[in-house]
Amino acid sequence: FCTFRKCYHQHLRYNPLRDTWVLVSAHRMKRPWAGQVEKPPEEHTPRYDPRNPLCPGNTRANGEVNSDYDSTFLFENDFPALQPDAPDPGSDQHPLFQSKVARGVCKVMCFHPWSDVTLSLMKKQEVVKVIDKWAELIEELGTTYLWVQIFENKGAMMGCSNPHPHCQVWASNFLPNEPALSDRCQRAYYQKHGEPLLLQYAKQEAEKKERVVVETSDWLAVVPYWATWPYQTLLLPRRHVLRINDLTTEEREGLADIMKQLLTKYDNLFEISFPYSMGWHGAPTGPHLNKDNSHWQLHAHYYPPLLRSATVKKFMVGYEMLAQDQRDLTPEQAAEKLRNLPEEHYKTREN
Amino acid sequence: FCTFRKCYHQHLRYNPLRDTWVLVSAHRMKRPWAGQVEKPPEEHTPRYDPRNPLCPGNTRANGEVNSDYDSTFLFENDFPALQPDAPDPGSDQHPLFQSKVARGVCKVMCFHPWSDVTLSLMKKQEVVKVIDKWAELIEELGTTYLWVQIFENKGAMMGCSNPHPHCQVWASNFLPNEPALSDRCQRAYYQKHGEPLLLQYAKQEAEKKERVVVETSDWLAVVPYWATWPYQTLLLPRRHVLRINDLTTEEREGLADIMKQLLTKYDNLFEISFPYSMGWHGAPTGPHLNKDNSHWQLHAHYYPPLLRSATVKKFMVGYEMLAQDQRDLTPEQAAEKLRNLPEEHYKTREN
Ligand SMILES: O=P(O)(O)O[C@H]1O[C@H](CO)[C@@H](O)[C@H](O)[C@H]1O
Ligand SMILES: O=P(O)(O)O[C@H]1O[C@H](CO)[C@@H](O)[C@H](O)[C@H]1O
Repeated sequence: FCTFRKCYHQHLRYNPLRDTWVLVSAHRMKRPWAGQVEKPPEEHTPRYDPRNPLCPGNTRANGEVNSDYDSTFLFENDFPALQPDAPDPGSDQHPLFQSKVARGVCKVMCFHPWSDVTLSLMKKQEVVKVIDKWAELIEELGTTYLWVQIFENKGAMMGCSNPHPHCQVWASNFLPNEPALSDRCQRAYYQKHGEPLLLQYAKQEAEKKERVVVETSDWLAVVPYWATWPYQTLLLPRRHVLRINDLTTEEREGLADIMKQLLTKYDNLFEISFPYSMGWHGAPTGPHLNKDNSHWQLHAHYYPPLLRSATVKKFMVGYEMLAQDQRDLTPEQAAEKLRNLPEEHYKTREN
Repeated sequence: FCTFRKCYHQHLRYNPLRDTWVLVSAHRMKRPWAGQVEKPPEEHTPRYDPRNPLCPGNTRANGEVNSDYDSTFLFENDFPALQPDAPDPGSDQHPLFQSKVARGVCKVMCFHPWSDVTLSLMKKQEVVKVIDKWAELIEELGTTYLWVQIFENKGAMMGCSNPHPHCQVWASNFLPNEPALSDRCQRAYYQKHGEPLLLQYAKQEAEKKERVVVETSDWLAVVPYWATWPYQTLLLPRRHVLRINDLTTEEREGLADIMKQLLTKYDNLFEISFPYSMGWHGAPTGPHLNKDNSHWQLHAHYYPPLLRSATVKKFMVGYEMLAQDQRDLTPEQAAEKLRNLPEEHYKTREN
């Protein structure tokens, strides 16, 4: 056996936030791709489309008319997966046929009145308004609901059916699988090491640098050591913060800055409006508001599907679905690539 | 609150094989779909293509020439994610930066010399040969490796880059996340209830009938109570069987029958060659061969991506990636739909 080199030799890496492993096989990038290619993202969305239900002043499926909004705009999802009044399925219940009541609300939030912008292209103060609204939502829905999931599906490749810049908020009376797992892992780490997992992690990464994509005085964006998606990133504050509504005014400005920087790198990677799903994880709310949540650290996950180009994505299928996630380039390679991209957005760049 | 009805009212269901929950919101099927549509699967694959590296007698990327095979055909993956000789990354190791050695082999197995058939269209005795080969592979690779994952990615939608009917086998010196979780859950259930989880489950489903898609005297295919993918199925023997190589000759014939039946239903659903990822889970091998694995029951998972039609899939994004799987029709509705489809394949049907 020769000396181990992470970009030549397959190995496993541990994800301490999910208690799982990922198989890193960087040599796989060498194989040729003869499989499915995607349609590249639409680059010419009209600023206003009279048929788009998310534009200001337009009528939605249920007959409601959007206000003539000039900043963010919030409304109830017209086809919510979670409704506040679902009855309890009762308790049959053989251990193999267990069900539970699910109650909640689903909202949609437009980021901007224009359909042809994205967070990367919006003005910093416009992004701050989005962040303020996120904080408000966590505050308000968090009084009732145990978990408030803010997420953005961006691009048709991610099942997003509307090009207008927007995110969704699904609040529920239960702790969903992913945050439940993350809560368990962060709690166990805190009990063992006396410091929040992600605070220690941020410090380590800020020192090591090799996985950092962008950083500011308050924030850090890295391709995590355990990333599964090729260009996955983790965005987190350096200070111990439980929830997005705990961010100071200054930290919100900093967040707007780093989000614009990160998303500009993403767009510049293949010179397209980069598709992804992203979402915020912070300490649980509702009945958890009065509990000790010191083990938690606020963070956002970005999961972009693309691997090789604007049209070739990573297929998380077969081995990934049945056995384990596998990646085809190292997180360090991905971070370096993103880090070295220009800071200026390809759409606003001169000449 | 009115009376609970599972096809109207969202609720959570428990997956005892993964210790997770799925959100079932059947009313979501009512929402219109304006999002991405897929290219329907290619229906006219030539029987033999001189440029296809999987056809008999053709030359592969590495210069090797395939034999003129007339049944199954096995070869080493030319771009393996797992190689037998990777060095050990050593142990740095901060608890947040843990890595482990990964060793293994990746093989490809063609099901048939013709590119224009699928398991659903192959003769029963040809399918038996595939099953025999699967059993041989578990037996052989299982002497060395802890886990032998047999899986099939079918269709371009599932990242499969070659239309020739084939599967893959990735064997590893480690227990991947999914089987590790399933092992843990089956073991805990067995300790508590004194009977294998999936044996009890098969009995219950055979009685209840509402989630059964097809059944034979030895086998059962159901849309599991906790299915996440719209038309996901679970295929398992009624007898307690640990691994595919433990199946009797009769059970292998029965498996060929039920696979042909299930896959015919799948193809008939939207009258296309139905895309999916599938794979086998059985008791671990290698060092586990001498341990007690009574808690295990052999089974196959089928994960098909389609939701509404041949071109509209379920996007497992946003909420699913960050919070929890969510489905848009009940498993009972999916099972009923599949169950009621003709037994004859649409391609071989008269008139
Ligand atoms: O090995 P293939 O068919 O080239 O590749 C396909 O299956 C692999 C195993 O499920 C995945 O890791 C790849 O993303 C997918 O494209
Ligand atoms: O709510 P949308 O945007 O219509 O739908 C999209 O996001 C949802 C939440 O991530 C997913 O469940 C859907 O599969 C996806 O198509």
